[in-house]
Amino acid sequence: MDTSKISQLINKQKEKPEHIHQPHFNLEAQVNSGRIKNTHNNYTMKKHNYSAGPCILPQDVFEKSAQAILNFNGMDLSLLEISHRDKAFVSVMEEARALALELLGLEGKGYQALFLHGGASLEFLMVPYNLMKENGKAAYLDTGTWASGAIKEAKHFGETLVIASSKPENYNHIPKNYTIPSDANYFHCTSNNTIFGTQMKSFPETNIPVVCDMSSDIFSRSLDFSKFDLIYAGAQKNMGPAGVTLVIVKEEILGKTSRYIPSMLDYQQHIDKESMYNTPPVFAVYTSLLTLQWLKKMGGIAAIEKINEAKANLLYAEIDRNPLFKGTAVKEDRSNMNATFVLNDKSHTEIFDQLWKAAGISGLTGHRSVGGYRASMYNALPLESVQVLVDVMKDLENKI
Amino acid sequence: MDTSKISQLINKQKEKPEHIHQPHFNLEAQVNSGRIKNTHNNYTMKKHNYSAGPCILPQDVFEKSAQAILNFNGMDLSLLEISHRDKAFVSVMEEARALALELLGLEGKGYQALFLHGGASLEFLMVPYNLMKENGKAAYLDTGTWASGAIKEAKHFGETLVIASSKPENYNHIPKNYTIPSDANYFHCTSNNTIFGTQMKSFPETNIPVVCDMSSDIFSRSLDFSKFDLIYAGAQKNMGPAGVTLVIVKEEILGKTSRYIPSMLDYQQHIDKESMYNTPPVFAVYTSLLTLQWLKKMGGIAAIEKINEAKANLLYAEIDRNPLFKGTAVKEDRSNMNATFVLNDKSHTEIFDQLWKAAGISGLTGHRSVGGYRASMYNALPLESVQVLVDVMKDLENKI
Repeated sequence: MDTSKISQLINKQKEKPEHIHQPHFNLEAQVNSGRIKNTHNNYTMKKHNYSAGPCILPQDVFEKSAQAILNFNGMDLSLLEISHRDKAFVSVMEEARALALELLGLEGKGYQALFLHGGASLEFLMVPYNLMKENGKAAYLDTGTWASGAIKEAKHFGETLVIASSKPENYNHIPKNYTIPSDANYFHCTSNNTIFGTQMKSFPETNIPVVCDMSSDIFSRSLDFSKFDLIYAGAQKNMGPAGVTLVIVKEEILGKTSRYIPSMLDYQQHIDKESMYNTPPVFAVYTSLLTLQWLKKMGGIAAIEKINEAKANLLYAEIDRNPLFKGTAVKEDRSNMNATFVLNDKSHTEIFDQLWKAAGISGLTGHRSVGGYRASMYNALPLESVQVLVDVMKDLENKI
Repeated sequence: MDTSKISQLINKQKEKPEHIHQPHFNLEAQVNSGRIKNTHNNYTMKKHNYSAGPCILPQDVFEKSAQAILNFNGMDLSLLEISHRDKAFVSVMEEARALALELLGLEGKGYQALFLHGGASLEFLMVPYNLMKENGKAAYLDTGTWASGAIKEAKHFGETLVIASSKPENYNHIPKNYTIPSDANYFHCTSNNTIFGTQMKSFPETNIPVVCDMSSDIFSRSLDFSKFDLIYAGAQKNMGPAGVTLVIVKEEILGKTSRYIPSMLDYQQHIDKESMYNTPPVFAVYTSLLTLQWLKKMGGIAAIEKINEAKANLLYAEIDRNPLFKGTAVKEDRSNMNATFVLNDKSHTEIFDQLWKAAGISGLTGHRSVGGYRASMYNALPLESVQVLVDVMKDLENKI
């Protein structure tokens, strides 16, 4: 196909009804009221944002967090300039901690929620510091790049058993039928693997504490979260902007090691200080609260799970139906958050890339470890955006 | 003085020309242009914000960061939803790192600037991890709560010598005439002590690496920054919102210890990854860049230093002149960032508190360790705000 034909196709694609609209914000009201009011409800998508993270958040959250920067809580001060000890922010932190537990169904079950600095990568270190005993050992499941990052840090603390790994198959599936040693101090797994598009659909039963990195699928599906003893998640997928990490910890698993734990890495110290051991990342915590409030209003995890399933089903059905495409993850382990796929014929790359970009889609390029494409369908991505992608895939088939 | 008299005074105070104005933001332009334009220059103070940190930032920075949340860089995407690997954010990180070095006069001198997670409290741990040799030792100057927090963490790594301390005098001065052992791995000090209102006016000469926590006075005064080997600063005073820490490190001091350093705590790994070892706190980095750009436009550190001196001179002159007040820090060590003072007669507390609150001042209450008042006069606090406080102090004297 020559270049002029590609251009024709792209122009044709552009003639379709516009999926992209400019946002219509009106912050003028603040001038009169002293605080900003939301005077409209006609939010529309700016782009179909498939970014793997940081990623799309609800449009309403963007507007509210921008408002808080101009004037927080009617205080005539920016959210960024108030003390974190101000009661207005203390109540943000308290509500965020309580709401995280509520949404996971963990209130009153001995868990604490913490909003910490450092990203999930710092948790790779905090987990063994807090849970691996001196001369102890831990069991890790190796399902991808981040799991293997966690393993790397744990190795410096004690015996770190990799009890199963899908690395030889470039992490295209979740290992099964492994045994968790009952004398390990904890079992660590990664529930969703953004890069490889795989997701754990079930979790093993074990008598030792279960630690799970849920960075890329927390709050996206119903699970019995009380089967986990420690859950951590960098905010920048389903919870908020980059710069804060949610840690959910069952308090009874702490204090079992005699190892020295530096203050900033000690979960118990953060619990004792109500997640304010040092100045928290105020903006990221507040924006996470806004996102959790949005989720609650949507109907919580059970409601968003249905939408996430609909989005994933729609896209995977097209990947499987369309002869031009192929999924890269083993079907039974496919992630509802990140769908990874490739073109069967690489010579279609240029035209496909131009088509999806012309449709207002962004962030679809796959990670270099897998190549091809990755459609990240986090909570805030509307079904409409998935339909747009599916339409583009059909268009490509029709025109080739 | 009875309550009705207090009310009269406060009403009289309120009759004064209004110091507080509503902000006049007009973000309407974005609806037409697809990105927000700053259509006005009449920023006025909302409050006279003396918060000790997080604290006031330039009003222009608040508006620009709010705009970026709605639509970043004309991309039709929020700053919060783009990948940190997107070239638009990579260039933010690069500019912020370069501008920090430029403002400090450290370009081309072997230094690296990093924007890290964790706050200065994580640096208390990273410094000994990276610099204290196995069986080595370090020398610390104890000038307040934060210095003592740094000492506490270092003690777990090796011999931690507290070579001088002003603790017995409740940290009301900076110790002098101490000796730094030439065989220590490094010397650590805290340039400004927010809680106690003291500031190091000079720094010792030594042949060992000098590490300085400049969280509360970085970018506020001219110093020969090349005399320091490692400078760190939580952003939330003169640089940006809470949630990011600037680290300036002379690369040649790294790699001298055989100690194992966890990846997230290893300065060299952060340098090798160009300050993107893991997902950075995108919003806090961008807002820090806006603040650094504002400082450069103001004329850099030399220009802001003059304004900071004028503010401090104005306030300290009133503290010393007004018979109702007394400064708590030794005069020669007074901080230009945080002025701590008390009422000589505590029975004036209620009326003074009502007067400054009525004048639109916020955040003046002193830290519980010192009591009384603390006026934090960071870079973004205008001289006008200090004049308002001085006027209130004079009013109190006139009416008592």
